[in-house]
Amino acid sequence: MNGSDFEARVSAVGERARAGGVDAVLATPGPDLRYLIGYDAVPLERLTCLVVRADDTPLLVVPRLEVLAAQASPAGALPIEILTWGEHDDPFALVSTLLAEARSVALDNHMWAEKVLRLRDAMPGTDLSLAGAIISSLRMRKDDDEIASLLDAGAAIDAVHAQVADMLQPGRTERQVGAQIADAILGTGHVRVDFVIVGSGPNGASPHHEVSDRVIETGDIVVVDIGGTMPDGYCSDCTRTYAVGSPPPDFVREYAVLQGAQAAAVSSVRAGVTCESIDAAARDVLTEAGLGDLFIHRTGHGIGLETHEDPYIVAGNDLVLAAGMAFSVEPGFYVEGRYGARIEDIVIATDDGVIVANNRSHDLVVVS
Amino acid sequence: MNGSDFEARVSAVGERARAGGVDAVLATPGPDLRYLIGYDAVPLERLTCLVVRADDTPLLVVPRLEVLAAQASPAGALPIEILTWGEHDDPFALVSTLLAEARSVALDNHMWAEKVLRLRDAMPGTDLSLAGAIISSLRMRKDDDEIASLLDAGAAIDAVHAQVADMLQPGRTERQVGAQIADAILGTGHVRVDFVIVGSGPNGASPHHEVSDRVIETGDIVVVDIGGTMPDGYCSDCTRTYAVGSPPPDFVREYAVLQGAQAAAVSSVRAGVTCESIDAAARDVLTEAGLGDLFIHRTGHGIGLETHEDPYIVAGNDLVLAAGMAFSVEPGFYVEGRYGARIEDIVIATDDGVIVANNRSHDLVVVS
Repeated sequence: MNGSDFEARVSAVGERARAGGVDAVLATPGPDLRYLIGYDAVPLERLTCLVVRADDTPLLVVPRLEVLAAQASPAGALPIEILTWGEHDDPFALVSTLLAEARSVALDNHMWAEKVLRLRDAMPGTDLSLAGAIISSLRMRKDDDEIASLLDAGAAIDAVHAQVADMLQPGRTERQVGAQIADAILGTGHVRVDFVIVGSGPNGASPHHEVSDRVIETGDIVVVDIGGTMPDGYCSDCTRTYAVGSPPPDFVREYAVLQGAQAAAVSSVRAGVTCESIDAAARDVLTEAGLGDLFIHRTGHGIGLETHEDPYIVAGNDLVLAAGMAFSVEPGFYVEGRYGARIEDIVIATDDGVIVANNRSHDLVVVS
Repeated sequence: MNGSDFEARVSAVGERARAGGVDAVLATPGPDLRYLIGYDAVPLERLTCLVVRADDTPLLVVPRLEVLAAQASPAGALPIEILTWGEHDDPFALVSTLLAEARSVALDNHMWAEKVLRLRDAMPGTDLSLAGAIISSLRMRKDDDEIASLLDAGAAIDAVHAQVADMLQPGRTERQVGAQIADAILGTGHVRVDFVIVGSGPNGASPHHEVSDRVIETGDIVVVDIGGTMPDGYCSDCTRTYAVGSPPPDFVREYAVLQGAQAAAVSSVRAGVTCESIDAAARDVLTEAGLGDLFIHRTGHGIGLETHEDPYIVAGNDLVLAAGMAFSVEPGFYVEGRYGARIEDIVIATDDGVIVANNRSHDLVVVS
């Protein structure tokens, strides 16, 4: 990512704001701010805020004691004026002064309520809306550098899954395995562990289970869904399903259907088709085999500087995929009290098909 | 923490809401939710929301596919009804129905703008305010279990500082040292690295510098400010200042003043004095020695389930300390282009004095 990429992004936000009748877009620390100006500021109580004005130059408001940190980030090299405020100033009044003429201001979707409501109070005549549509339409389409970043992240998490079978010994708890996986996530180049799901036996039936003190037993199916963040901020997310010892025969049949469903969805990905069609491609295969009711979640979510971001691969989302859109394809099935299964890869749509960021086999891994 | 602690907290929030004329308090995933019901849900796009009603029982709204995760948390054992919503339901409409009679609703301070503005739109006649004052007046006063947690976190980060001198060899970059410190933070019992500041030479003059590729040289002063989160969610935060080789004589004189300033502030801590008086205790010592202008930030911040929370130790904050309030005492001085220095301990106010959670020496550590 170089300075001209960031300049183009900020400028595109300004243009989209103007086109949408929005006078300014405000972004506080978080993925939007990092995406727009490369400043990976920690979200804290003091206000740091990028002010992208539709009809004027962008500004960055930062607490005085963070100005060196802001200048040291890529934002410091951009043609963005930095305005500082001191420990006893009111930064919301400052923003309100900068936007004295603004009637419509859009806020980044993750801005904290304490900022949102103080801005509301400081700008009583101004309509506040979400900047999500403006910023995510940019963030959704990954450029070549971002695609390379997602492929690196995919290779890193694949390298963790390569170690998981050896960790899944009967007698160990999910928590012990999870701790070892967390170490491996950091050991493969990630700088942050975002989540570790080790859902053994009945715990696998809870899609967002994390880890517990349950002891893994012979005969268990184990869903392992893991992800982390790479040094450049891009995220990994990959699920594989493991069997400790021989899996139940009905599970084997169901899992084969799931493999087909996941493959059908991945092979339907290309620019020009809708998000909901990808969901339907997976769901139809499961439904035809009588497993539709066990697939209790959407098929996927966008990924980039966040693990979950636009586009969502869900029924009702008629957004048309464009080249560069990156998301998970992760159908599953869940039988309460017994087990769950999920297969998840990150994919990137291209004009004529798909790039797959995760490349470990989809076959059930039987740990003997 | 047991169930009755959580029940008492939720109930106290309801009472304070009623006393303040607030009909309901809403808390989404984050430290407030974890504090109130022990549910450490990951903040994501789907709405999870605790609804504490002033005149009725509390409710927890969760996405259907996370209901097992919610039930598996301490929240599952509390007398709180769990309401679920499906992938195609509108959870904001659901919350609005639950609060049909509410005229005044308070939101947790970290709720995302995308939730805040959707709630605003779903409840057009309802006044939205911040729940900060209601919840933080509880969170600020740590109970015995929480104090024990902060002492454990303090011991863990002290054990990291015990290893730092050996890492600070001339010729290594801040980033290399920072990566090793991050490993040590995880190796001492933390489950998450929250921040690693290695500010060598002129980088030390930026209080919120993180790490860079600057090579540490003989003669450098290095500010090392580090923290992480323990398995129970409580945070550590501790700063020590190191000298690589002989420090400049003027620095040695200034650092001795800083030691005195930090000690003066810590020894002034006890229930019954104001937050601003602790700030003044440190600032006065630096000012008398002609270093007041170099101390460019407040003296400290509260700590608990967040690294930064109430109370803030800053001029203008006349909040009176109560027993159990926990915060950092971290004066520093910053000479642009040359160096910085800071000494930080976490302390807990008691009725007759102070408990200090960090216990490594404050003497300048000279790495030879």
